[in-house]
Amino acid sequence: MVTPQVAHFDAPLPLTCGRDLPAYDLVYETYGELNDKRSNAMLVCHALSGHAHAAGYHSADDKKPGWWDECIGPGKPFDTSKFFVVSLNNLGGCHGSTGPSSINPETDKPWGPDFPPLRARDWVNSQVRLADYLGIDCWAAVVGGSLGGMQAMRWALEYPQRIRHCIVIAAALKLSAQNLAFNEVARQAILSDPDFAEGRYQERDIIPAQGLALARMVGHITYLSDDAMASKFGRDLRSGSLEQGGEGGAEFQVQSYLRYQGSQFSGNFDANTYMLMTRALDYFDLAREYDNDPVAAFGHAQCSFLVVSFSTDWRFSPQRSREIVDALIAADRPVTYAEIEADEGHDAFLLPIPRYVSVLNAYMQRVGAHC
Amino acid sequence: MVTPQVAHFDAPLPLTCGRDLPAYDLVYETYGELNDKRSNAMLVCHALSGHAHAAGYHSADDKKPGWWDECIGPGKPFDTSKFFVVSLNNLGGCHGSTGPSSINPETDKPWGPDFPPLRARDWVNSQVRLADYLGIDCWAAVVGGSLGGMQAMRWALEYPQRIRHCIVIAAALKLSAQNLAFNEVARQAILSDPDFAEGRYQERDIIPAQGLALARMVGHITYLSDDAMASKFGRDLRSGSLEQGGEGGAEFQVQSYLRYQGSQFSGNFDANTYMLMTRALDYFDLAREYDNDPVAAFGHAQCSFLVVSFSTDWRFSPQRSREIVDALIAADRPVTYAEIEADEGHDAFLLPIPRYVSVLNAYMQRVGAHC
Repeated sequence: MVTPQVAHFDAPLPLTCGRDLPAYDLVYETYGELNDKRSNAMLVCHALSGHAHAAGYHSADDKKPGWWDECIGPGKPFDTSKFFVVSLNNLGGCHGSTGPSSINPETDKPWGPDFPPLRARDWVNSQVRLADYLGIDCWAAVVGGSLGGMQAMRWALEYPQRIRHCIVIAAALKLSAQNLAFNEVARQAILSDPDFAEGRYQERDIIPAQGLALARMVGHITYLSDDAMASKFGRDLRSGSLEQGGEGGAEFQVQSYLRYQGSQFSGNFDANTYMLMTRALDYFDLAREYDNDPVAAFGHAQCSFLVVSFSTDWRFSPQRSREIVDALIAADRPVTYAEIEADEGHDAFLLPIPRYVSVLNAYMQRVGAHC
Repeated sequence: MVTPQVAHFDAPLPLTCGRDLPAYDLVYETYGELNDKRSNAMLVCHALSGHAHAAGYHSADDKKPGWWDECIGPGKPFDTSKFFVVSLNNLGGCHGSTGPSSINPETDKPWGPDFPPLRARDWVNSQVRLADYLGIDCWAAVVGGSLGGMQAMRWALEYPQRIRHCIVIAAALKLSAQNLAFNEVARQAILSDPDFAEGRYQERDIIPAQGLALARMVGHITYLSDDAMASKFGRDLRSGSLEQGGEGGAEFQVQSYLRYQGSQFSGNFDANTYMLMTRALDYFDLAREYDNDPVAAFGHAQCSFLVVSFSTDWRFSPQRSREIVDALIAADRPVTYAEIEADEGHDAFLLPIPRYVSVLNAYMQRVGAHC
């Protein structure tokens, strides 16, 4: 059982875009106990649509635990009997932390589209303040999958003294043109929903439900492998008959599944946050400020690295992880790399795949041995 | 220089859905001359968004030739000095043949969403009538890429006496769950555009431009390989600066390219036709009426086959073509298979890739030797 907490920050946060964010809140959860030396803390960074609730239950009625409950808990890879695990909702998010749906103190209206654009480094800077607030000088590990892995790498480069281990799962040094293209389609889906109202839907008490659902459907396809979809749905019909042809008729399982995922998401997520998060993902480019040289970039890191990829992940394929590993080796950084055979595509990073869990376990035992 | 022609058919066409299509038109073009034996005719079947204009120019002002001009013409693989090439716009299309934007004689209004759903076999049946109309008893070859390849296979099974060679390029026995998922997103994009008006946009003199553009953007990503996108665009910026972050700022080349492709398409294509074509693609399943056994299905064919796939095509990957080839071999049908190394993904089938052109040339010389 876990209770979300709120850290309030009064000092304005200078952002990469040149603007300052005035006072802001970060919602976070913690699992396990901080030891006396304050040396067993680890930070979990979330991906595109994540939030602070990574593990445990909020109430006895909760149907589902946190999004990474498979990995966080006593006896699990991020073992809460050994580690003090911190998980937050990123700035710009829509699950409690200050973001586009929060009130802009200057206008007394929701920020909406006026919320400043964020970059991964802005998140890391805001997380540094959270670390200070919690009295954590140095994380035993910073860990994240996908966009979370990008934040973990950014920590390693920008705050080398404050991170001992960096765990980068199913991520990349930067997005490919195809990645950018899918994000563009997702944003265009939101933008073309008339209920988006140029981002001012909240003031009008509407939501761009269809645009957001479409965006999620596109994203969802890229999270699953072709094989995973095939074994999950194949060409099974939910209704109708293929003999009859189209007319309102045959519907495949995969179609209704996607529609369900889309409509669930549009009820739970903020469209301006989705725009902001996908842009942060697009603009992420680890080595840009280091002469576009990942080796030079990682030369600034002082921690050890674990990099993990999944065989059928086509959003951030093993090839993209190997680019990270190659740069780390060239930069003479200690790195462990595991390419996990898994059918589930990008989503695999959330699942308790035995070899993946073993790799995390083994690595975290090394981390724990020096806390 | 070529002029489109119209074949009018007065006899109702019984459709797979159980309905009859009353009188209908097919627009077609021909290139080359039919020989005296009427034995040198080949039929080109188009893919999702194709039309009859496969080769040559309509006028001296035309900027672009037909969509498969790289392959059709004197000295080209489908050599018009040897073959009489016929290319039509499929029934249900929006480039001249009877389709959802045609007038329904029963209501004197556009058919719109009331146009009957079609299956690949309906197209083949309508093409048989075109063959009769042109006095062609047996095609030297029926050829098509993608959805066009599916029609070519359907010809081989349903009209074995009327086809000597079947050329199947970048196709599959049926769509995968992932293929279905992308089509579903495309249709949902159209359906959620308020200007779709449940398919009655034409009566209101509007078009669902944004929905159709989105659908095309999704499709377009699946036509290109990750590599092709990377070499075409990389992460090049069209405007703005990544240092500045998001705010109306940085725009990647690939984003503006996709938007351009989307808006071009929505000005040139009919949304109801897009719905109909993607559904025909979804419902295509070569072996369904043959106990779901592709070997049994191909047992009905009597022609020879050329199957071609492209290494980076992830919409219909080489694996999907190998399934066709394996079934043909098991059914004891003569088959030539070529897997072409190409960076361009699914789009490769439209491009003059040297090895691809050689394979087509070599095969067509065999076809021509017996005309």
